[in-house]
Amino acid sequence: MKIVLDGMGGDYSPDEVVKGAVRAAAEIDETVVILGPEAKIKECLEANKWNGNNIEIVDATEVITNEEHPAMAVRKKKDSTIVKGMNMLKSGEGDIFISGGSTGALLAGGLTILGRIKGIKRPAIAAWFPRAGKKGVTLLLDCGASVEAKPEYLHQYGIMGDIFVRGITGKIAPTVRLLNVGAEEGKGDTLHKEAFDLLKNSYINFCGNVEARDVIYGDTDIVVMDGFSGNVYLKASEGMASAVMGLFKNKLTEGIKAKFGALLAYSKIKDIKNTFDYSDAGGAPILGLKGAVLKVHGNSRSVEFYYAIHRAVDYVNSDITGKIKETIEKTQTVNTETEESGADE
Amino acid sequence: MKIVLDGMGGDYSPDEVVKGAVRAAAEIDETVVILGPEAKIKECLEANKWNGNNIEIVDATEVITNEEHPAMAVRKKKDSTIVKGMNMLKSGEGDIFISGGSTGALLAGGLTILGRIKGIKRPAIAAWFPRAGKKGVTLLLDCGASVEAKPEYLHQYGIMGDIFVRGITGKIAPTVRLLNVGAEEGKGDTLHKEAFDLLKNSYINFCGNVEARDVIYGDTDIVVMDGFSGNVYLKASEGMASAVMGLFKNKLTEGIKAKFGALLAYSKIKDIKNTFDYSDAGGAPILGLKGAVLKVHGNSRSVEFYYAIHRAVDYVNSDITGKIKETIEKTQTVNTETEESGADE
Repeated sequence: MKIVLDGMGGDYSPDEVVKGAVRAAAEIDETVVILGPEAKIKECLEANKWNGNNIEIVDATEVITNEEHPAMAVRKKKDSTIVKGMNMLKSGEGDIFISGGSTGALLAGGLTILGRIKGIKRPAIAAWFPRAGKKGVTLLLDCGASVEAKPEYLHQYGIMGDIFVRGITGKIAPTVRLLNVGAEEGKGDTLHKEAFDLLKNSYINFCGNVEARDVIYGDTDIVVMDGFSGNVYLKASEGMASAVMGLFKNKLTEGIKAKFGALLAYSKIKDIKNTFDYSDAGGAPILGLKGAVLKVHGNSRSVEFYYAIHRAVDYVNSDITGKIKETIEKTQTVNTETEESGADE
Repeated sequence: MKIVLDGMGGDYSPDEVVKGAVRAAAEIDETVVILGPEAKIKECLEANKWNGNNIEIVDATEVITNEEHPAMAVRKKKDSTIVKGMNMLKSGEGDIFISGGSTGALLAGGLTILGRIKGIKRPAIAAWFPRAGKKGVTLLLDCGASVEAKPEYLHQYGIMGDIFVRGITGKIAPTVRLLNVGAEEGKGDTLHKEAFDLLKNSYINFCGNVEARDVIYGDTDIVVMDGFSGNVYLKASEGMASAVMGLFKNKLTEGIKAKFGALLAYSKIKDIKNTFDYSDAGGAPILGLKGAVLKVHGNSRSVEFYYAIHRAVDYVNSDITGKIKETIEKTQTVNTETEESGADE
């Protein structure tokens, strides 16, 4: 197995990427192929006291930034880490591509170089979300691969999420819910009413709607969301979590008595931060492409890349891409119509 | 001025409603008309040591619950507090209607009994949202009156929000942003791209898109949201705030040392809760109807009803409804086509 890693993706690349790779490579049998300017990557490997095993470098001289137009950058920068990574998946030289780079460029590159699995209408970004109270994590998708949505896309998100969670966790019939404005059947706009019906009549373990308030308190394995609402859900949660934690930090260190209290309670506050720490979630798979792509948050440190490499091994071993292909062929009339690229964000 | 109050709306009605009314009535010159079963309301007034001034009772024997189908309940229950309240606004016997009852029934009753202001395509529920760091509050609309959205609806939400905030706060040119998946122009689905253009070419002080993460950190006066995303935004924020605060509470009281720390920091934690306490926001106006309706949260206590009555006085004095009517007549081609009722949730 070859795990292809974008050495230049993310705010702290290449140092933190290589650091994570060195740590992971010492623990696995697979090969990590780091894409990036060869000399620079070598230097980082040395700085991180690489033991000489399980890492290869493939030279890539260009980088696509978040500021560039994704589709244009993918067309122009043939020697970029993202374009080279996608081409390695396509040619079979790599089994999975991990990147902390531009989500737009990963989607554009994935769609134009790898293409969608036949019958899949839109790829979806899937991300693990923590739960409060109940143990475990919930897979949310789509987290923003498509901002336009149709009922069939949401139906396919449910199917892809089910295959992914079964493959990764071994659960037999993971529970699936639809993010909606109310819990009862019949709630929502036309899009969500129609998606509800499709999910309900599908073979997956669909358990109905879930309101945004209850996602974090629930124990649903998979929550299907249209890409626009999914983006709003994640970013609203992120904003509020950070706002409340910031207020606690400020308030607890205001005044001598409170400061004393805060010092005593400090270790507990660290525990809470860890509860909402996605580091070990190991990245967000982009599902529905003819190849396994794992997007890591742009502000990731070495620990995120370390975990992503470990998760990538499970991802490839579970053959998620093959299973999605097989399932879509079996359960759906394969739609061969030409569609827009879907890289609409 | 007559402020009509739904005595039977909300989880703690009529006791908490009447308690709030007694407290507010002692401080204002206007009359509060409480709708509800006369004997029961009288009993509550006595229990709350009403001084005999500024409160009238209008008998209403029925109540519409959250479990009923809103439109059907409004048609059937002619003697319900909500139907009577709307009729009092229509006939001029009341100037504003405050209710903690079913949002669906308030919308259905508002649309069928009062009707929309000519030219307004959809009413909008507007709610004040707290800010972290920067002082003040942000008006969010639509918070779920319509789950289907069109660009023109969002445009009108911006106009109604502008009129409301100018009327209530006296600000000259309140800032308006559009909730979207990215901050730059050109982001989002067709709905939000088209809404962006309409808002940009409107007379209001439109400042572009805002991402869900940044609403709480910003200082925008008004954020326009489609009703579906608006619902997701509010409920995601609510869920996360409550999850993080719950975790803090648990963690801070775990173990003797932390418990001691928590006791010292306790007053500060109360401060934080107050920051996110909507009580004094005084309810969410339903804008766009031919009458002033103020929805109060179903789980409100007397303090929320007390503040809502005070805010209602400002609302009526600012003649928000008249100003929306005037503005829509001036700025928009009045659209007289027959539309669906809009009570689609």
